Amino acid sequence: MKQVYNFNAGPAALPRQVLEKAKEEFLNFDDTGISIMEHSHRGKHYEAVHEEAKNLLKGLLSIPDDYEVLFLQGGASLQFAMIPMNFMRPDEQPGYILTGSWSEKAVKEASKFGEVKEIISGKAGNYTSIPEVPSLSQDEYSYVHITSNNTIYGTQWPSFEGIEHPFLIADMSSDILSRRIPVNKFGLIYAGAQKNLGPAGVTVVIFRKDVAERANQGIPAILSYETHIKNRSLYNTPPTFSIYLLKLVLEWAKGLGGLEALEKRNEEKAQLIYDAIDESQGFYSGHAAKNSRSLMNITFTLKNQELTKEFLKEAEAQGFYGLAGHRSIGGCRASAYNAVPLEACEALRHFMVNFQKKHEE
Amino acid sequence: MKQVYNFNAGPAALPRQVLEKAKEEFLNFDDTGISIMEHSHRGKHYEAVHEEAKNLLKGLLSIPDDYEVLFLQGGASLQFAMIPMNFMRPDEQPGYILTGSWSEKAVKEASKFGEVKEIISGKAGNYTSIPEVPSLSQDEYSYVHITSNNTIYGTQWPSFEGIEHPFLIADMSSDILSRRIPVNKFGLIYAGAQKNLGPAGVTVVIFRKDVAERANQGIPAILSYETHIKNRSLYNTPPTFSIYLLKLVLEWAKGLGGLEALEKRNEEKAQLIYDAIDESQGFYSGHAAKNSRSLMNITFTLKNQELTKEFLKEAEAQGFYGLAGHRSIGGCRASAYNAVPLEACEALRHFMVNFQKKHEE
Repeated sequence: MKQVYNFNAGPAALPRQVLEKAKEEFLNFDDTGISIMEHSHRGKHYEAVHEEAKNLLKGLLSIPDDYEVLFLQGGASLQFAMIPMNFMRPDEQPGYILTGSWSEKAVKEASKFGEVKEIISGKAGNYTSIPEVPSLSQDEYSYVHITSNNTIYGTQWPSFEGIEHPFLIADMSSDILSRRIPVNKFGLIYAGAQKNLGPAGVTVVIFRKDVAERANQGIPAILSYETHIKNRSLYNTPPTFSIYLLKLVLEWAKGLGGLEALEKRNEEKAQLIYDAIDESQGFYSGHAAKNSRSLMNITFTLKNQELTKEFLKEAEAQGFYGLAGHRSIGGCRASAYNAVPLEACEALRHFMVNFQKKHEE
Repeated sequence: MKQVYNFNAGPAALPRQVLEKAKEEFLNFDDTGISIMEHSHRGKHYEAVHEEAKNLLKGLLSIPDDYEVLFLQGGASLQFAMIPMNFMRPDEQPGYILTGSWSEKAVKEASKFGEVKEIISGKAGNYTSIPEVPSLSQDEYSYVHITSNNTIYGTQWPSFEGIEHPFLIADMSSDILSRRIPVNKFGLIYAGAQKNLGPAGVTVVIFRKDVAERANQGIPAILSYETHIKNRSLYNTPPTFSIYLLKLVLEWAKGLGGLEALEKRNEEKAQLIYDAIDESQGFYSGHAAKNSRSLMNITFTLKNQELTKEFLKEAEAQGFYGLAGHRSIGGCRASAYNAVPLEACEALRHFMVNFQKKHEE
């Protein structure tokens, strides 16, 4: 099998061991003679997977007891709609902090349900950094929404210090499970799985229980968080195979030493590529301001479009997948999620250094 | 590996050849060195799968050119909400035909958006048969909703003759791809995949294009059919692995000879079990009236609860999965979807005959 390095932005690389284990038991789960995806979602075999996935996530993220973990469908895009449907009210106004295209989409959807306040936006600065957050009052905002990592621009909240609100919501689709997070600062955290957690098709929602009480009534059952809490994410048929893979990814993460170990590994991985940028004396230039650099998505450009094109072409020929920047901003992007091995980042650094040598001569 | 017979109601059996093929290329799709689920949904490898799945479905179901095929998430439950969100208006009233629990849920969700007319309901007769449909006027109903197969009660519309409305909507979650259907009678058909089409986590929607023009504006993008039509079901990250498996299932169905062959096979399979019921002289009694019997879900009870319990216990010990009836009505149910082989139905018939002999002595 050919050697490739998968830097796709999502769906993205999955841990090799996870895929091998899934392949091994693909036709015969737990000696039942059938695949896990052929089991009923109400049967004991799938039920055990479902509960174990929840418990592993609670353990890995140190989720306090007064939180629920939900497995939903529809990705972050459905959460953009569910949040205002559940929590916006005519006499109240939520606040959104804009740090990139995904925050913009979240605002756009919420605006369909009423007036939304943009607390602060990095748009004028082309989203190169995470803006400083003013103090937030509960009276002013019914909830406050942030995007913890911005896949397109390659920026990430360095920490969540300095942001305080009783009902803080975070879209963590592209950095959940990649570093330690203070879950207890948040009322609701959501994340599409297809970057750090598993395959596309399942969305994790972490929910402080008291927040359910604020939810609007009379909305469609499938779009109400309360429905899913009451039914332990089994109100309708869940995407069972995706949740099974999520469970395997969580087991893998635990085996590696949990979030602290993953965070350290992700820092090392990203540093390799940022070093190649910083030591290039301008041959490569990073999009993100240094204090807002993402450990997950490393965005950069070369001197001109022609050279960028040549870089992407040569990289692809050498087995690097997914290095083209998002179509909305161009340039290059290396997405180094949890499952991307250190060796892939070493190989990319090596490639970048060599490419520079060759093209500077 | 032990011999089992999978009669689960959904998630359900998948064709063995499909699972074997998926296993074979699980780590290395199309010689790319990575799994199909690690590919970007915007890359050429996944794109080819996506388009091929659509084209196969169009071919198998003879879907006319003025229809679109969408791959969404959230199952039938999300469709229960999306349909009224997109198509209900204050001055109009849709009509629903009630043939079981899933139709009831569809009505309940639609009622959150306005007044809904129950055209006719089989509830008083405990949903043992598909009621005769009165003539439907376009002026009276903005759309008309039916459920083509009722998994819980084991009834199925024998044909769609005698039901005419310019905007007819059908939930075909549990019998799509099992028999020929006159697609051109419908404005919208939807089906969760986890019975006849693939694994849980993807929903197929078949949509007559002119119907999009009737849709309400200003609803959340992710809940608007128009969004998904415009973006070819790639507005957000689709459940790529589930759609890949769907594609394999459709290839398998085509290889078997398409809908005509599947329909014939399903008739033979169901007949084996209905014969065991009909020839038992009351030892087994079917729930559905003969003219409304489902080829997909065969529901029956034994003389008393004790015997039913014993039947289910012995069946399980002999490798039959999923024969317990839905928790809301009890009894037994054999779900014989497309992927359930004839041999499994023969084995069940054999078991039923032997069980009767043993317990009548």
